[in-house]
Amino acid sequence: MTESKKLNVGLIGLGRLGRVYARDLATRIACTRLVAVGDVSQAAVDEVVRELDVPRGYTTSGEVIADRSVDAIVIVTPTATHAEVTKMAAAAGKPIFCEKPLSISLEQAVAMRKAVKDTGVFFQLGFMRRFDRGFAAAKKQLEAGAIGDAVVFKSSSRDPYPPTVEYADPRSSGGLIIDMGIHDIDLARWYMGEVASVQAIGGVLAYPELGSVGDIDNAIVSLVFQSGRLGVIDLTRNGIYGYDINTELLGTKGTLRIGYLRETPLFVMTKSGVTHDTVPFFMERFGDAYRAQLENFAQNVLRGQEPPITVEDGVQALRVAVAATRARETGQPVAVAEIGI
Amino acid sequence: MTESKKLNVGLIGLGRLGRVYARDLATRIACTRLVAVGDVSQAAVDEVVRELDVPRGYTTSGEVIADRSVDAIVIVTPTATHAEVTKMAAAAGKPIFCEKPLSISLEQAVAMRKAVKDTGVFFQLGFMRRFDRGFAAAKKQLEAGAIGDAVVFKSSSRDPYPPTVEYADPRSSGGLIIDMGIHDIDLARWYMGEVASVQAIGGVLAYPELGSVGDIDNAIVSLVFQSGRLGVIDLTRNGIYGYDINTELLGTKGTLRIGYLRETPLFVMTKSGVTHDTVPFFMERFGDAYRAQLENFAQNVLRGQEPPITVEDGVQALRVAVAATRARETGQPVAVAEIGI
Amino acid sequence: MTESKKLNVGLIGLGRLGRVYARDLATRIACTRLVAVGDVSQAAVDEVVRELDVPRGYTTSGEVIADRSVDAIVIVTPTATHAEVTKMAAAAGKPIFCEKPLSISLEQAVAMRKAVKDTGVFFQLGFMRRFDRGFAAAKKQLEAGAIGDAVVFKSSSRDPYPPTVEYADPRSSGGLIIDMGIHDIDLARWYMGEVASVQAIGGVLAYPELGSVGDIDNAIVSLVFQSGRLGVIDLTRNGIYGYDINTELLGTKGTLRIGYLRETPLFVMTKSGVTHDTVPFFMERFGDAYRAQLENFAQNVLRGQEPPITVEDGVQALRVAVAATRARETGQPVAVAEIGI
Amino acid sequence: MTESKKLNVGLIGLGRLGRVYARDLATRIACTRLVAVGDVSQAAVDEVVRELDVPRGYTTSGEVIADRSVDAIVIVTPTATHAEVTKMAAAAGKPIFCEKPLSISLEQAVAMRKAVKDTGVFFQLGFMRRFDRGFAAAKKQLEAGAIGDAVVFKSSSRDPYPPTVEYADPRSSGGLIIDMGIHDIDLARWYMGEVASVQAIGGVLAYPELGSVGDIDNAIVSLVFQSGRLGVIDLTRNGIYGYDINTELLGTKGTLRIGYLRETPLFVMTKSGVTHDTVPFFMERFGDAYRAQLENFAQNVLRGQEPPITVEDGVQALRVAVAATRARETGQPVAVAEIGI
Repeated sequence: MTESKKLNVGLIGLGRLGRVYARDLATRIACTRLVAVGDVSQAAVDEVVRELDVPRGYTTSGEVIADRSVDAIVIVTPTATHAEVTKMAAAAGKPIFCEKPLSISLEQAVAMRKAVKDTGVFFQLGFMRRFDRGFAAAKKQLEAGAIGDAVVFKSSSRDPYPPTVEYADPRSSGGLIIDMGIHDIDLARWYMGEVASVQAIGGVLAYPELGSVGDIDNAIVSLVFQSGRLGVIDLTRNGIYGYDINTELLGTKGTLRIGYLRETPLFVMTKSGVTHDTVPFFMERFGDAYRAQLENFAQNVLRGQEPPITVEDGVQALRVAVAATRARETGQPVAVAEIGI
Repeated sequence: MTESKKLNVGLIGLGRLGRVYARDLATRIACTRLVAVGDVSQAAVDEVVRELDVPRGYTTSGEVIADRSVDAIVIVTPTATHAEVTKMAAAAGKPIFCEKPLSISLEQAVAMRKAVKDTGVFFQLGFMRRFDRGFAAAKKQLEAGAIGDAVVFKSSSRDPYPPTVEYADPRSSGGLIIDMGIHDIDLARWYMGEVASVQAIGGVLAYPELGSVGDIDNAIVSLVFQSGRLGVIDLTRNGIYGYDINTELLGTKGTLRIGYLRETPLFVMTKSGVTHDTVPFFMERFGDAYRAQLENFAQNVLRGQEPPITVEDGVQALRVAVAATRARETGQPVAVAEIGI
Repeated sequence: MTESKKLNVGLIGLGRLGRVYARDLATRIACTRLVAVGDVSQAAVDEVVRELDVPRGYTTSGEVIADRSVDAIVIVTPTATHAEVTKMAAAAGKPIFCEKPLSISLEQAVAMRKAVKDTGVFFQLGFMRRFDRGFAAAKKQLEAGAIGDAVVFKSSSRDPYPPTVEYADPRSSGGLIIDMGIHDIDLARWYMGEVASVQAIGGVLAYPELGSVGDIDNAIVSLVFQSGRLGVIDLTRNGIYGYDINTELLGTKGTLRIGYLRETPLFVMTKSGVTHDTVPFFMERFGDAYRAQLENFAQNVLRGQEPPITVEDGVQALRVAVAATRARETGQPVAVAEIGI
Repeated sequence: MTESKKLNVGLIGLGRLGRVYARDLATRIACTRLVAVGDVSQAAVDEVVRELDVPRGYTTSGEVIADRSVDAIVIVTPTATHAEVTKMAAAAGKPIFCEKPLSISLEQAVAMRKAVKDTGVFFQLGFMRRFDRGFAAAKKQLEAGAIGDAVVFKSSSRDPYPPTVEYADPRSSGGLIIDMGIHDIDLARWYMGEVASVQAIGGVLAYPELGSVGDIDNAIVSLVFQSGRLGVIDLTRNGIYGYDINTELLGTKGTLRIGYLRETPLFVMTKSGVTHDTVPFFMERFGDAYRAQLENFAQNVLRGQEPPITVEDGVQALRVAVAATRARETGQPVAVAEIGI
């Protein structure tokens, strides 16, 4: 294998995840070079430039996009800015990787879709679970017929502690179902196809402060797929015991169960019982998947391949999440087709 | 411990479960004597009488109830006859254990409740899961505060193969949600309190023949408890891989996860992976719980204690199941209070 | 299946295990009747006779054996008396089930073998692990070729707390390797064939008081089978965390791993990790196996079948255990053939 | 944290593990720069230089060591050359990381120790298991008193398939016990202290071709520590079902069990049972540990800290392995003190 060809990447957004991506692009992915980074914080830019020997750093997205050495753009900015940065990069004709969710606004998501279509730019959306070994292996088993027809999708996402009230504010996060559930909804579509209608219940059960900004901390979403198959997703902010992410596909010939909870391969066994620790949070659980996802993006661009997760995937996942949010608010079933896009 | 005092039991109904109960009462529970059995089949009566040395056998319920040596009645007849037999036994003033469900008809269930109240007879309903070591230990942990407040109830019941079409007919079984979900609903009430409203989806996804009599083979029921807490139950007839029964209580300080799937303590490890077998069906999973439940009944009667599971528990569980069935049929949320009793 | 034929059993020895056997024979095994019990303690006899409605109770072995209603003898007396009681029962021509170990004295064991051979009496030795679902399923898998040739036997027995110093005294218990290891040695022979030589190390590492009577609390025994295959057994009295019994057969095409440690099907999941409880002790772990073993004995006698575990099995297992004990004491390998029988 | 200071490393040996180390040093460890590589194969050097942009490549160890830009040496050459390369690097006064085992010859190992002592050079030996999360967490738990005194050490190493006959030849590999067991012996010393004596059995049970060069494919080694505590190690080449590495510390208050076997977080559940895959081999199991180990080496050098694994650790582990090999060959216990160093 010759690895002489590398993708020169400009990364925009140096928050927590952005810095992880920076390190991955700069040092851990063989087929990428991190040639420029951008963030509104000059200090953040300086720090990353120095640590990772990045050739150029900027404080605006426009500069990163305009940089002639930059062949492709990775967007890890706050969700509210995804649309604007995407439109700029699309206009510049540079291949784009954009972190999930596309947007919390369907209107903006649709505008992004238009920009991508109009320019014909390469656009890959980030849903890292699809690159996790377990979720990917399940997809293969499913396609190989290991469980016959998958007729029920069951998924659970649990954060080990609540976000700040500022973060949780539905005006910026979209609310629990969009913020956390978008991952499960993407998996639902990936494994099972399009969703026809949703029902949802939810409440503020553990962290009253989240209610003060209009969010909830627990929700259960039921899905009916266009095929008539069924799905259910439970979401919680009070997964106190660890970051617990699991999905199950119940088929006519068997079941696939994906996920794990033990972080360290150690059992402590005393009179109090047998105990193991748990996965702390998403970076521990999905660090490899994040890296595999960026590498996949780079290879797709280098080889002229289609993106496995498209802007349309982002639009449709958001649409289901918006429908589920409305179902939760109204207490009534919502047909996804009602949500205009 | 002196065990001199024993309860003389008359058992009515010698189907599959009835015969297990007969053996338990006759030989495996120290505080009971099986003094009479009854079934419409003379052959069944003869066989059990001979095998277990039961003093007397009858072909009508009335004869068992009227038998002077019989101190208490165990009813394991087909569900449709529970009401009639219960009324007879209540009229005779004999303590009653009645297998679940109370009835599939709310009207009959309410009539049973009236009979029990009017006569003041001791009446204990069978929901054996409460006597399973795992479910019972979870109750204790919950009450001890191990997980803080339980805010989400999540339960799954999966049969390894479908019933006959005759059995599944909703006119006799009540349909999937009543037939299978009644156990999960009882647990939901036991752990979490009363249910305020339900939503449900379902379909015929694996066994088209079940649809021919109007039943479904998969369902997902969402619950909102009167306290505002949340619940979800998934039910399936195509648990192909084994009899999988599990429940989870998600609390503000932790989680309790109840259930197991491995039947034999053996791992077979080859190039194809590591494999274990699964629980075949309910007798293997809950055999001990069934026995513990009957023993509890006998001790309660002997010691003049209140039944842990009452006729009211049967009425309320059925009411929620009826509400969920209606929610599934209409596609709309149903308030449990709408279901008149 | 007609179960009209029953074996009338006389049980000798009403210690802890004896009482469990009494209840099993009296109430839980369909093909046995407990018609007489014997123990040196009149109080124990009275109690069991009353509780289980046993027709006759005696304070000597001779009386039980001589009782005309007794068709077969179950011996659960202290090990030191096994030989004498066996000889009496053999002389009376009554089929015998004898609890393990045959004896802690090879001389006595050989004498028992002679008595059995000379009289031609039916004699079945108790090694209940062979009747455990896991160990039995492993035997079937092995014979079915699931792992090819089993080339390494690996077994571990751990008691959750130490015996009394009186019990541990090697003059009565035979010492750790004979007392605990005899089970693993029996399994070794059952799965792998005869043992050629042994090595062993051990020490008093947790309970100094056991050293005061000359016993040890931990040992590791290595086995070379006559076939050249290998084995290892580790034994401990300080299995603090639970009663942990597991065995592994490593083959040329795979591995079988037998055992489990979780007693209650419940996980408690908090910030401190995920915890489950453990098997308390042998009655919880092997209660079903003890019962299955007695039932097997009764059926063998009733049907004229050969015993699956013979007096020779007892002699040979003891011989290996004696060799291992000597190896531990001398620090030198011991050929089993050196141990004259 | 500023990471401006980096260690300029010269890597010698570009076999399979050497290439992994090259990539780690070049791209995945923040505090290292790979400034030179060396291997007898010019093609291997060219390939790695090109792929990883390594400034300089050589075909002799001497050139790498002499390179002025090289601050520290990482040795991953064939074991037989460790001594010579180490002596050269020591003479040059450059800090050394040397892959395990130090040597298969005690004489050479002692010579290496002398070279290190005489020159006072920094020398760190590679035993990556100590850097695995599970093994490291167990060490912390042990030191924190979680299990009281560890009195029994139990460890198992199983390769999923045999090495080539050429590799296995004891003249180059040292034989099974040295080649595979050295890891377990290092852990034994790390957790438990020095070994006083050993016993061992072994044989050619699965791969007769390994016997043709004088090696064995299975072994069991018993250890008595100087403290009187006990240990046992089982080694196999026919771990057909996967790369199974696990260790247990049995203490007076509990037990620590380290290891895992499932590679992908997925269960496939069908009528045939519940199945998961297994760890393929050491790179999958210990990839993170290898990297953590190299990073630890670099940081120790940069910060002037002592190596956690010394040349003495290498000498002593080898000495125990040599003793065990002799014990296996002679069938007699061997005191480690008999093995002169």
